[in-house]
Amino acid sequence: MEYSKMVTAIYPTRKENYSEWYQQVIIAGELAENSPVRGCMVIRPWGYGVWEAIQRDLDSRLKATGHENAYFPLLIPLSYLEAEAEHVEGFAKECAVVTHHKLVHDEVNGGLKPAGELEEPLVIRPTSETIIGAMYARWVKSYRDLPVLINQWANVVRWEMRTRMFLRTSEFLWQEGHTVHATEEEAMEETLMILDLYHKFVEEVLAIPVIKGEKPCFERFPGAVNTYTIEAMMQDCKALQAGTSHFLGQNFAKSSKIQFLDRDGQQKYAWTTSWGVSTRMVGGLIMTHSDDNGFVVPPKIAPLHAVILPIYHNEDEKAQVLAFCENLREQLSNKVYDRNFLRVSVDDRDIRGGEKAWGWIKKGVPVRIEVGPRDIKKKSLCIYRRDMEVKQKEFIDVDEFIIKMPMILDSIQNVLFNMALEFREKHITYISSLDEFNDFFSTDLNQEKGFACCYAVDDIVIENHLKPLKVTARCMFLERELVGGECIFTGEKVTRKMIFAKAY
Amino acid sequence: MEYSKMVTAIYPTRKENYSEWYQQVIIAGELAENSPVRGCMVIRPWGYGVWEAIQRDLDSRLKATGHENAYFPLLIPLSYLEAEAEHVEGFAKECAVVTHHKLVHDEVNGGLKPAGELEEPLVIRPTSETIIGAMYARWVKSYRDLPVLINQWANVVRWEMRTRMFLRTSEFLWQEGHTVHATEEEAMEETLMILDLYHKFVEEVLAIPVIKGEKPCFERFPGAVNTYTIEAMMQDCKALQAGTSHFLGQNFAKSSKIQFLDRDGQQKYAWTTSWGVSTRMVGGLIMTHSDDNGFVVPPKIAPLHAVILPIYHNEDEKAQVLAFCENLREQLSNKVYDRNFLRVSVDDRDIRGGEKAWGWIKKGVPVRIEVGPRDIKKKSLCIYRRDMEVKQKEFIDVDEFIIKMPMILDSIQNVLFNMALEFREKHITYISSLDEFNDFFSTDLNQEKGFACCYAVDDIVIENHLKPLKVTARCMFLERELVGGECIFTGEKVTRKMIFAKAY
Repeated sequence: MEYSKMVTAIYPTRKENYSEWYQQVIIAGELAENSPVRGCMVIRPWGYGVWEAIQRDLDSRLKATGHENAYFPLLIPLSYLEAEAEHVEGFAKECAVVTHHKLVHDEVNGGLKPAGELEEPLVIRPTSETIIGAMYARWVKSYRDLPVLINQWANVVRWEMRTRMFLRTSEFLWQEGHTVHATEEEAMEETLMILDLYHKFVEEVLAIPVIKGEKPCFERFPGAVNTYTIEAMMQDCKALQAGTSHFLGQNFAKSSKIQFLDRDGQQKYAWTTSWGVSTRMVGGLIMTHSDDNGFVVPPKIAPLHAVILPIYHNEDEKAQVLAFCENLREQLSNKVYDRNFLRVSVDDRDIRGGEKAWGWIKKGVPVRIEVGPRDIKKKSLCIYRRDMEVKQKEFIDVDEFIIKMPMILDSIQNVLFNMALEFREKHITYISSLDEFNDFFSTDLNQEKGFACCYAVDDIVIENHLKPLKVTARCMFLERELVGGECIFTGEKVTRKMIFAKAY
Repeated sequence: MEYSKMVTAIYPTRKENYSEWYQQVIIAGELAENSPVRGCMVIRPWGYGVWEAIQRDLDSRLKATGHENAYFPLLIPLSYLEAEAEHVEGFAKECAVVTHHKLVHDEVNGGLKPAGELEEPLVIRPTSETIIGAMYARWVKSYRDLPVLINQWANVVRWEMRTRMFLRTSEFLWQEGHTVHATEEEAMEETLMILDLYHKFVEEVLAIPVIKGEKPCFERFPGAVNTYTIEAMMQDCKALQAGTSHFLGQNFAKSSKIQFLDRDGQQKYAWTTSWGVSTRMVGGLIMTHSDDNGFVVPPKIAPLHAVILPIYHNEDEKAQVLAFCENLREQLSNKVYDRNFLRVSVDDRDIRGGEKAWGWIKKGVPVRIEVGPRDIKKKSLCIYRRDMEVKQKEFIDVDEFIIKMPMILDSIQNVLFNMALEFREKHITYISSLDEFNDFFSTDLNQEKGFACCYAVDDIVIENHLKPLKVTARCMFLERELVGGECIFTGEKVTRKMIFAKAY
């Protein structure tokens, strides 16, 4: 164990202890930290910078497809949550409940105690279908008011017993879209359009390959008719649900009374959808691309695309080198990559060069640029790419580099996606019998084998086979096959394959 | 009363009932709505669009001055809040308290009831000094770690008994900056730099003239050493605090134990600041610029700069007009105003022209552009500016208009600021005796006279004079005078004038 400590920046390595490696990458990269509040994390500036980049890109995609942002209350009256029976069952066990609205001095024990008990408890939103539905019921009166296409960027709380930074925290940040439509077809179209939008976003921007699919009935969002998902594979071969889009049918329209007067003069219940992605995606990002030296951030969502590290040995050199670096920063900052100006910073902190470079390696900045007096003389730069070996450097002519920088970033983005894709493809196994299935998941506990893909029926009966193996059904393929095959669990004829995996 | 209903879009008018007018402007402009959750509002897309524009501009100003965004927990353990004595006293009466973490079936009364009582209650953040301070105590070890310049965009809850949309709601959105410095001077410099940044932002972007000042001791933020403020005057002559910046001295550093090893080898407590502006600013915006026809939004923060209203009478005309409008929209969207592309939309909804135009008047869109077949023939557009009389139109050549549009927006922005400035200047009265002061505030209750400015001592004793008049001390001027004058309440010699007003 001690060996790895000496040659990699993160200890332990992925192989030694994947779960602990994950925590260490987050700490070392200053992405986040556990807070003193049970189950809640603090997202530090570098981690939040990634989230801001995610927000910026995703928000523009949502707006380009006609969605607008709005904001609804954090607190939901208990009676609202109760309106949809399945929904409340799904969330009751993890609700933070507000029962009082002030604090008064505790004469007995000292300090303060809650006072001003509320007549009706309020629940901190675990998701907002019910409160948003109540507003939609007021706003929607006629078919002319439809569709309603609204998104909310917000925090939500789901009380979790076992938490893990980014992947599962009691409070997390997300976007939740809530739409209302006149017909079933339109609502389904929206549900699948968003699934597609998520798919493209996650692959193009986060460089994480994902499989689009439909959740089997026993994995649906509480209250949904269908739940669609994008599933990613982490480097330990486990699955991570990276986003979901729900077709809610008329369930929530009925419980929230969202009705409209249609063209034909009939009063009808509307059809609704909801969909969301969260800060969990940052966890997926870390688990997909990072290595034993820390975080690796795809250029498109890097808080900084490049950092310039000045090297000097005396005050004369310092003045010259810093001036050169500042000029280089300015020139790079005028270049465009992925429809944004390059984000470049000069790190002139007064700390040792090695510490500084390793700090940026652990933060995963895509490109490091070292500049010393000799480089300036030669008009050349020493470049390190985070997707390459740590010590692998390249000397490039300054002017050439400034022109090539967007292409270098493109290349890094592609390398990361392709590596992840190759890894996933290597770890999907097509399985045709229950024995094979059991064997696939039951052998070596520390070395997961990945996704199993087989014919399986969309029925809760198959869960009995999964639980002992600690395996979950991730999704069914969207496309139905013409011929199909036999469910490996029940022998029934089915036309869709299902993906199974151990999962986060 | 009935008369106004017929000639203005908002009923009642400002003169008839200012407070009700305010609510009606918000409803008619679809900016926000009261929610079924006590004291919480729903910010609708048009209102949220204004907030997004505020965020975009302010965020870039904060980043340009070296601040980074991060995210801290929503829930604060009671013991953290208790650490700073004045602070907790200030907020104890308005805290939403989470006491349980799940819901279970209520066998007695049916439905659900809170369960899983927490060992220590959690408070929904009313502000985040204490929880952020706890993290800073971990992060700050040496003078090399300073300054810490972090901002958070978040929701907060302060339980309010009397609420009013945007101005005072139990939950609101804001940004809160929290910084740590090695010296008193640096912390004070930051506090005043931010005050200046707010001042420029509010005047340049929201077109609201504000007075910079320092709060008297009895109006300080709980736990602060000094609180600085920007104060605006609404159209009913009342004051609105539009933003505050607090110099916290070492109070929170001591309660949170933020210590660092200084250059001189000494372990020292750090100096901290905090500062924030909130969705309250949107309320100030409405009360400053809107008129009896609804909201008027300054171009720099308008969700849309212009809306194009196609006019046609048959299908042939429709095709021609819509194509023309779409082309116009595209051309305008390529023009830059205030460092952003113009935000322009074509409203081709199938509703009556009058209803459509009035909808946009009530939303306050800066420019309306009407396009009919005759306009297309003449290559001219019919333009309405929201800062002019409702029926005042101007015909402008298409190409000329496209070029001039950014200047038109600049002109509207300036007109709004100057009107507000003129109004405020007219309603500041310099007062030199207590009789004059009493007279100024006690006469006509329905016709406020504005701000009174006079010499007054920075001491809570003067509150006795203010309470019966329902007047509040807004701020002291930042500059001290060489000679000064006598406090109108106590006769003491002071070197700063103070502003008094009835206030929101």
